Amino acid sequence: MAASMSFALLLCLFFLGGFPFADSYYIAYNTTPQIVPDKINVHLVAHSHDDVGWLKTIDQYYVGSNNSIQGACVQNVLDSVVSALLADKNRRFIYVEQAFFQRWWRQQSDAIKKIVRGLVDSGQLEFINGGMCMHDEASTLYIDMIDQTTLGHRFIEHEFGQIPRIGWQIDPFGHSAVQAYLLSSEVGFDALFFSRIDYQDRIKRKGLKSLEVVWRGSQTFGSTSDVFTGIFPENYEPPSGFYYEVNDDSPIIQDDSNLFDYNVEQRVNEFVAAALFQANITRTNHIMWTMGTDFKYQYANSWFRQLDKFIHYVNLDGRVNALYSTPSIYTDAKHATKESWPLKTEDFFPYADRKNAYWTGYFTSRPTFKGYVRAMSGYYLAARQLEFLRGRINSRPTTDTLADALAIAQHHDAVTGTEKQHVADDYSKRLSIGYAEAEELVSSSFACLTESTSSTKCEALSPSFKQCPLLNITYCPLSEMELSEGKDLVVLVYNPLGWNREDIIRIPVSTASVIVRNCKGQFVDSQVLPILNVSQEIRKLHAKAYLGHSAGIDPKFWLAFPVSVPPLGFNTYIISVGGNAVAGRPVMSKVYESHNNVVVGQGNLKLVFNEGSLSRYVNSRDSINAAMDLSYVYYSGDDGSGTDYQASGAYVFRPNGTYPIEQRKQKSLTIMQGPIVEEVYQEINQWIHQITRLYRGKEHAEIEFIIGPIPVDDNVGKEVATRINSNVRSDRTFYTDSNGRDFIKRVRDYRSDWDLEVNQPIAGNYYPINLGMYLSDNTTEFSVLVDRSVGGSSISDGQIELMLHRRLLHDDGRGVAEALNETLCINKKCSGLIVAGKFYFRIDPFGNGAKWRRSQGQELYSPLLLAFTEQNGDDWAKSRVTTFTAMDASYSLPENVALITLQALEDGSVLLRLAHLYEAGEDKDLSVMARVDLTKLFPDKKIEKIVETNLSANQQRSEMERKRLVWKVASSPDETRPQPPLRGRPVDPLKLVIELGPMEIRTFLVNFSFVSVL
Amino acid sequence: MAASMSFALLLCLFFLGGFPFADSYYIAYNTTPQIVPDKINVHLVAHSHDDVGWLKTIDQYYVGSNNSIQGACVQNVLDSVVSALLADKNRRFIYVEQAFFQRWWRQQSDAIKKIVRGLVDSGQLEFINGGMCMHDEASTLYIDMIDQTTLGHRFIEHEFGQIPRIGWQIDPFGHSAVQAYLLSSEVGFDALFFSRIDYQDRIKRKGLKSLEVVWRGSQTFGSTSDVFTGIFPENYEPPSGFYYEVNDDSPIIQDDSNLFDYNVEQRVNEFVAAALFQANITRTNHIMWTMGTDFKYQYANSWFRQLDKFIHYVNLDGRVNALYSTPSIYTDAKHATKESWPLKTEDFFPYADRKNAYWTGYFTSRPTFKGYVRAMSGYYLAARQLEFLRGRINSRPTTDTLADALAIAQHHDAVTGTEKQHVADDYSKRLSIGYAEAEELVSSSFACLTESTSSTKCEALSPSFKQCPLLNITYCPLSEMELSEGKDLVVLVYNPLGWNREDIIRIPVSTASVIVRNCKGQFVDSQVLPILNVSQEIRKLHAKAYLGHSAGIDPKFWLAFPVSVPPLGFNTYIISVGGNAVAGRPVMSKVYESHNNVVVGQGNLKLVFNEGSLSRYVNSRDSINAAMDLSYVYYSGDDGSGTDYQASGAYVFRPNGTYPIEQRKQKSLTIMQGPIVEEVYQEINQWIHQITRLYRGKEHAEIEFIIGPIPVDDNVGKEVATRINSNVRSDRTFYTDSNGRDFIKRVRDYRSDWDLEVNQPIAGNYYPINLGMYLSDNTTEFSVLVDRSVGGSSISDGQIELMLHRRLLHDDGRGVAEALNETLCINKKCSGLIVAGKFYFRIDPFGNGAKWRRSQGQELYSPLLLAFTEQNGDDWAKSRVTTFTAMDASYSLPENVALITLQALEDGSVLLRLAHLYEAGEDKDLSVMARVDLTKLFPDKKIEKIVETNLSANQQRSEMERKRLVWKVASSPDETRPQPPLRGRPVDPLKLVIELGPMEIRTFLVNFSFVSVL
Repeated sequence: MAASMSFALLLCLFFLGGFPFADSYYIAYNTTPQIVPDKINVHLVAHSHDDVGWLKTIDQYYVGSNNSIQGACVQNVLDSVVSALLADKNRRFIYVEQAFFQRWWRQQSDAIKKIVRGLVDSGQLEFINGGMCMHDEASTLYIDMIDQTTLGHRFIEHEFGQIPRIGWQIDPFGHSAVQAYLLSSEVGFDALFFSRIDYQDRIKRKGLKSLEVVWRGSQTFGSTSDVFTGIFPENYEPPSGFYYEVNDDSPIIQDDSNLFDYNVEQRVNEFVAAALFQANITRTNHIMWTMGTDFKYQYANSWFRQLDKFIHYVNLDGRVNALYSTPSIYTDAKHATKESWPLKTEDFFPYADRKNAYWTGYFTSRPTFKGYVRAMSGYYLAARQLEFLRGRINSRPTTDTLADALAIAQHHDAVTGTEKQHVADDYSKRLSIGYAEAEELVSSSFACLTESTSSTKCEALSPSFKQCPLLNITYCPLSEMELSEGKDLVVLVYNPLGWNREDIIRIPVSTASVIVRNCKGQFVDSQVLPILNVSQEIRKLHAKAYLGHSAGIDPKFWLAFPVSVPPLGFNTYIISVGGNAVAGRPVMSKVYESHNNVVVGQGNLKLVFNEGSLSRYVNSRDSINAAMDLSYVYYSGDDGSGTDYQASGAYVFRPNGTYPIEQRKQKSLTIMQGPIVEEVYQEINQWIHQITRLYRGKEHAEIEFIIGPIPVDDNVGKEVATRINSNVRSDRTFYTDSNGRDFIKRVRDYRSDWDLEVNQPIAGNYYPINLGMYLSDNTTEFSVLVDRSVGGSSISDGQIELMLHRRLLHDDGRGVAEALNETLCINKKCSGLIVAGKFYFRIDPFGNGAKWRRSQGQELYSPLLLAFTEQNGDDWAKSRVTTFTAMDASYSLPENVALITLQALEDGSVLLRLAHLYEAGEDKDLSVMARVDLTKLFPDKKIEKIVETNLSANQQRSEMERKRLVWKVASSPDETRPQPPLRGRPVDPLKLVIELGPMEIRTFLVNFSFVSVL
Repeated sequence: MAASMSFALLLCLFFLGGFPFADSYYIAYNTTPQIVPDKINVHLVAHSHDDVGWLKTIDQYYVGSNNSIQGACVQNVLDSVVSALLADKNRRFIYVEQAFFQRWWRQQSDAIKKIVRGLVDSGQLEFINGGMCMHDEASTLYIDMIDQTTLGHRFIEHEFGQIPRIGWQIDPFGHSAVQAYLLSSEVGFDALFFSRIDYQDRIKRKGLKSLEVVWRGSQTFGSTSDVFTGIFPENYEPPSGFYYEVNDDSPIIQDDSNLFDYNVEQRVNEFVAAALFQANITRTNHIMWTMGTDFKYQYANSWFRQLDKFIHYVNLDGRVNALYSTPSIYTDAKHATKESWPLKTEDFFPYADRKNAYWTGYFTSRPTFKGYVRAMSGYYLAARQLEFLRGRINSRPTTDTLADALAIAQHHDAVTGTEKQHVADDYSKRLSIGYAEAEELVSSSFACLTESTSSTKCEALSPSFKQCPLLNITYCPLSEMELSEGKDLVVLVYNPLGWNREDIIRIPVSTASVIVRNCKGQFVDSQVLPILNVSQEIRKLHAKAYLGHSAGIDPKFWLAFPVSVPPLGFNTYIISVGGNAVAGRPVMSKVYESHNNVVVGQGNLKLVFNEGSLSRYVNSRDSINAAMDLSYVYYSGDDGSGTDYQASGAYVFRPNGTYPIEQRKQKSLTIMQGPIVEEVYQEINQWIHQITRLYRGKEHAEIEFIIGPIPVDDNVGKEVATRINSNVRSDRTFYTDSNGRDFIKRVRDYRSDWDLEVNQPIAGNYYPINLGMYLSDNTTEFSVLVDRSVGGSSISDGQIELMLHRRLLHDDGRGVAEALNETLCINKKCSGLIVAGKFYFRIDPFGNGAKWRRSQGQELYSPLLLAFTEQNGDDWAKSRVTTFTAMDASYSLPENVALITLQALEDGSVLLRLAHLYEAGEDKDLSVMARVDLTKLFPDKKIEKIVETNLSANQQRSEMERKRLVWKVASSPDETRPQPPLRGRPVDPLKLVIELGPMEIRTFLVNFSFVSVL
């Protein structure tokens, strides 16, 4: 009879509660408060951050399976939010990721759909951001960002008639200029919100109340593409102590005085204190609390119950005003204050969340997946063209599956490489499925387009064309097989670009005794090159891994020949076995080994190799003759065992040593020479191989690298980079692209927004590269282009560095909880992943580099698309259309314009997007107004109606411009472009000429009166 | 380009899913299935097991605070269940714990209440068990079990008009006979379900398909109190792999063929397999799946979504029939099969969930709290009588707060001692608050009852009576203070029992110079005893701890005097300062120390002490002269470091050594002798003190023990027991009570249901003791009675062992995650908890023991209730009622009947419960039909209406008997009582005599035409 009783009696004296089961204690909470102008307004934004794949796959997240990895079920979120919103009409919720929302929406009954439409109409449920995913901003190409946003936005518009107003990139690991001006302003967003900026930057901004800014992301467009941008004080979660997911341990409001632990006053005080703290670093008396985080609101009522109470009691208290809000309401409130905002230019890369934690590793993480995404993106662009050209049928095959797969692959834990391995596999699987369907569509489209009789009902044709998506591993069954006498290989070469194209194509063949003819039966120059052992090995290994069976008999040669293809069209080449005939036979490459004084290149461009390595770059036309070298290094990834526990991992690049990789001295170069292409093969070491190529008619070098398996037997993770040294005096300055679009000036060890404390001289100078980067001095420009997203830098003057592969043994502590240690497994035997890819470089006289970067960039993104079939005898060319262009035969797009979307939509309309490829001032000839004549782009179709829309095609452009909020800038010190930007005028429906100013992307919905197979 | 793609392409070949955003994919699940007689029916019972306090307090569990300890929020459960039930009318849910339900109900709006009433009416929401908590069955007294069940049942009846049909004791750690026959059959339950039985028993029952039985818990009532009892195959959770709380990782059914991982067939197969497995150990083709567990259904939809799908797809499959069910539906289905069931008698104690894990520690865990609960229970009984006698007012003070506090204290993690310390404190705090209010009520009732003018409006009286709840620590400010000349202390002595009572009372006083008079002014014999040092120390320490301030000047003496009090009434004694007067002064005890040949006792009973210890028990009247000794031992608690990791803890008693505690040799006994009481004080060791008392007119010994702080400096937890050796040749057999009611025969190292494998010869022979235990041979009975619930055994013949205190340093791995290491803290300085308590023993000739056990048991449970006030001069007796009985002055209840409930209800009716105290055959004179004459019990009131009800007073008894299902018994080998039991006949409303057969408890709702202050 002791302690228990003691405590009881003691407390009894102070206890004010009462009879537990007194009368009813129902409390009707007053949740009606709106903005009160003269108080601090705490905008409570209920949200769930639902990663479209990360630790689990998107479908696992949606249905709530695989919860042993992470408890998360988006179906719960949406189900329970609907109930919670219905329970109180003042409650609001925002939903972001349309890939999830669409999965849910499809499963709902008509009754629920009707209810949800009501909630959306009333504003209780608001779609924010509205893309399929919250795309990454570093490893993504602007075209993919646009496509995935468009897919989400058009769905929302179609189902709900709603137009998202707010960009909500709360989680991506750094923020791009293209996101600001293109994916926000041009989409029509009134504001953009996010949380992740450099920790040094954040500290400064807090002090200056400059976390909320006007962001001017485009030098070309200047203030016309400003967007109000709010950076959260810490993260996208609630203030500490205000988390209310089921089982969260923040103190709830206990307001039933009949129960113990009544705490209303205490919790109100804590709420007010947190509000005042934030108000002290925020301009105006509006602050936003992001009341949610990853996969929360699985039982939404658990949050809303507390939010109801806070609104009720905080407003009874009266010191601050708390209200249910959304980012739109918050944005309007901010705007209504007529405040002026600090100006922010450029971008928010790189991102470090603390000392020694630069999130620049993910620029390269999973390089094969990044390459796959990029290849599929280009293929999707072409496939949509072909879907349009064939005529969309709205039954399978379509490009829609690939569209969805690509859309979610843009997620900030997808293409970034920061997901778990099984999730990366899921994204790849989705791309593969989407590709397979698109490939079928493309084949059937070719079948249609090559039919000479237009009366044929095209969709009924069984596609006989095959494609070779595994050419990257030297695998193409159709071209490899011995062509039997009388059966020729027909190669259809499709050009998705808007101008005529001369290029070299290469296919593996089993014999050098072949003859290439064009569609008129004329011989075409060709060259055969022995297939390198390294390529044969890769073919064997990966064909087995990809297909589950052996690759069959090895082909012996690459057959290379030049092709010429009209814009938006194709040409056809016939390959037949030559037998003993001499005429038309390909040139056999001259193959030899050498070590010194090797000169390759038969045109203006020559490369000189000495001591087994590249030593000079010579372009006689431009009188460039410069020392140059190319080497590889690896960084040893920090293992996190030091005093700063930060390891290098999927997100974070933290090198703890730089190790040059010496080319093995005993190895000479293997040179293959011939009229079409010249190659230099280097075995840098056992696991790095490199082939340098110079093509006839091209004045750039192509470098193919094959890296891996990166050895980790020494228990050291390694991050492999190439370094190309030029003699350009770049003075710490280099230029990298923003999502493949604008180039942004970078200065080593410097940030324009704050005095940088340099802790990571390598990692802290890395930037994302999607298109390429360049250096310049007053005489020359040295440019490199890439075939996928990578990280890059210029660590010393004149040098360009690209990180090409990473294999790490430790997790970097940002949640993925796996080391980035990719492997290739066959029969459960795994070895480190091999990456094969390409980059390209060129030196131009100062001021001339942009043209190559832009034009070559387009060709890299949209390679010629090859399809194969067989012919018996020579009947193909006779009975088929062998050359084709969708455009007027005499027309091609201007050199500074690309057709980035041509897509037949489900409703019969056509989505058309044209992009000017140059920034203002980028090229003296091409940074000018361009014009596209639609009558010549679509010569056989009549345009009934053409409407210009915003970028994501969910509203008329004029409407968007009318509505978009204009923000005042507090100081605009370096408005470098005072004159208004060039922008095309509205399209005259009679003339149908589209004007495009520099960097302009214009989006149209076009209705043709006649859409058919041509 | 490598692994990602490989996996993708490979899987693509096997992928049968499709276009992700095809048309609507809404599935309407068919959840209508009912029972199909010729199939295996899987009764899916959705439930949440909500502990009324355990790791968190009841209120914390309700509101969902303190989630860092355990994520649990019952408010979520009830909120979300209502929504989920509304979403599909075929869904069902059962709710059990009314303490939670009532908290929730009070907070609901009228609109929600209406909806919930609809759900209850339709059977979608069914109340099961229906007490305030799921009471423990080992440490609880039958009266408390009845009270807490009644409280819940009457609420349900009042709010919903519903009568729970099913007992649902799924978690308590062993099951009592009283639960079976009294709290199930007599309540009207058609079945009782639970999960925890001995692991050896379970194995045998599975093999014999005897997990479902007819349980005959009462020897007295035999088959008339049978109850169908279902023991779950493993636990009260779903089969492995079928858990669907938010974030649980059981595989969900993924039935959207547009998403990956479609698994309907696989999950259906797993469901069917689990069903067949269970069907193989179950009679009939009905099996129950308990779809829930502790605090689940926080987001009920997460479960129901999957249950809907299982019902839909499993029934499409057709091998078994799955349906939404409840234990009622299941029970009816079982009954409808007309199957016969194995017979189970006795009880399910002790419980072991595996070898070396006997849950017999909790019989004693937290002995001070167990004592507090018992004391409050007795007080509550008396306070309700006084509330009735004063006339219930329905405004404070009432006994309702104490009722609620006591109700939840019966929870199987409350009085059991298996809760965390802060939760134990919470229960005590609630009791303390409830007590304080009841104390006020009792005082005001005394104020009324002592008013001689009945015209006074009684409720307006300010109570001037004070009580002394801390007499157990020798603290009673009123009696202690120096009585100033002319101011006397008035002691009102209330007797809650139904018969006149002669007893000795003791109060601390500051001076021996006092005089005790009865209400007629006559001197009363009295004796003063010096207060022992050990008591003074306890007083100082605990007064400081309980009250937060010093206890004031120490009183010097106990004043003991005999009192005589009428049934259900009081008598008054006046204590005044004697001054120099000699007449009437108390006898000063003779105090001395001795070692050998000490004989105490002035009546028939004498105890002999030799060598400092008890050595003989002599009762001259009964010619008993027997060797006897009493000693203490401690068990060292296993620390779980051995190969079997089981530690001794709050639940589990696992001794790893027995250590006798030798009384210090140098210490002599301190003896105090006198005419009223004789005491022998022994300091067993530094932390065990014992006082043996013999009272005038009583023929039993009272042992007061003071144990603690148990030393643990040696890092060994200790469990302290007393062992009393008699010369009874008990032949391994002993008898322990079931919840203070029936006595059950126990045989050491033996179970009647299976061949016991003895692994724990001590712990495995422990049983719960609430009233007492006894041994017998053919000549004598040796009985011990206790003042609270403890564990006890008879480890060797003739010996009775009681475990009195436990202090352990390791958690025993059953969830509470705290070592049972209770302390008393003052200014944050903590020392081990001290327990002070009493037990009583007596030896009777064979066949005579029951009378003492039953009568003395009633007196222990319902001690005389003392209240104090002062008088100036002698005016009290003149102007007040000084002696009172509610009954006819000539009447008292029969010796074999107790009034266990006399309670004025809120609606003006009165709840009356009478209990026969003897089992059939227990006593040759008293195990007979008894009669209570209500006209004499309530002489001043007219009974307008009297209705006999079931035990929990939520339905008429006749209705209950008409409805209750009768179950067939497969074999009834030992039907020891073939003749029908004696039961009282229905009450003739004219005669108003209540008959009670042995062990009968009869419950009535009585309406008086005149209820007033007398």
